[in-house]
Amino acid sequence: MVDQRVALRQEARRREVMAAATAVFSERGYRAASMNDIAVKMGMGKASLYHYVSSKEDVLIELYEDVLRENVIAARRIAGSERTALEALAELIGDRVAYTCRNRELLRIFFEEEAELPARQQSRLISVRHEYEQTLLEMVARGEAAGEFSLATTPRIFVNTVLGAANWVYKWYQPEGPLSPEELGSQIADVLLAGLRGS
Amino acid sequence: MVDQRVALRQEARRREVMAAATAVFSERGYRAASMNDIAVKMGMGKASLYHYVSSKEDVLIELYEDVLRENVIAARRIAGSERTALEALAELIGDRVAYTCRNRELLRIFFEEEAELPARQQSRLISVRHEYEQTLLEMVARGEAAGEFSLATTPRIFVNTVLGAANWVYKWYQPEGPLSPEELGSQIADVLLAGLRGS
Repeated sequence: MVDQRVALRQEARRREVMAAATAVFSERGYRAASMNDIAVKMGMGKASLYHYVSSKEDVLIELYEDVLRENVIAARRIAGSERTALEALAELIGDRVAYTCRNRELLRIFFEEEAELPARQQSRLISVRHEYEQTLLEMVARGEAAGEFSLATTPRIFVNTVLGAANWVYKWYQPEGPLSPEELGSQIADVLLAGLRGS
Repeated sequence: MVDQRVALRQEARRREVMAAATAVFSERGYRAASMNDIAVKMGMGKASLYHYVSSKEDVLIELYEDVLRENVIAARRIAGSERTALEALAELIGDRVAYTCRNRELLRIFFEEEAELPARQQSRLISVRHEYEQTLLEMVARGEAAGEFSLATTPRIFVNTVLGAANWVYKWYQPEGPLSPEELGSQIADVLLAGLRGS
């Protein structure tokens, strides 16, 4: 019991460190940021920070892992559910936009600091991204095979266009606006899939 | 005559400096890059480089100005032509995608190094971007008023979605692929506007 409580507390603390690091990397850029900046943000000494993470690079890798994990879990959940391909695409786009709205700082790092990752993590990133795109490509193929819609372009161009529109949201979403992340996600999915619905 | 030849040579040289700087900033990131890196890329001494540009920051500002100029000129040309709103939107999206395909390195800097600009340039960037979006919003309003189409979302969300999809192309376009920049631009415009066409 005590061990479990300690583990939970450790995990909660780790999440706080990740949130502080996200804010620091986002404000100063990854290269210019230091472990000391993160410690200051946490209100802890640098030595205590090393209790949770071993280096700035490790923090960056963990941030990428967090995003990848979230996205892969969402994609698998949606792909594995009983939905038409069009419903699944709408759900996935909406979900991704909502996640992006809630994690703009994190995604700014994710999309703009790729070159800072060590080579091994870069290839992992590419392979997980590939898997994610594959899930979308399969949804598109399923929809075409079932006669739900037909594309006027290649599945890959369609998927890249859709993902680009969804990802770009980290650049322009304003939390003080009238729409919730879910509402915005649903409207963007409508815009992107309206052409398919019409066919 | 001689003066004009000198001016033309200066301008050609300036463009070479900008191209070299684009490559260097794109490879190393703006912060890590130095004037010396640019000089080495040009195969000239650092002193000669200062003949064309006065600082690294100046180079960055000029790169932003180049992109802004190109985009504003294109938007004005298309907005001022005799086209239906839908045709104008298709032309603008296609044009922007093609430009993006041809200038991926430059646009990586443009989209990812904003925070490095001095404050005055940042506000200029925001105001030109605003003007560009305004041109698109006016095309959408014109199309709705003429009964060409009706949107299922707000004009602003529609425009941001479309621009996001077009901009993201700098992340994924592969010049060795089967499509020319113009062909890709036209297909992406089709995907984004198909919902409007269907209404």
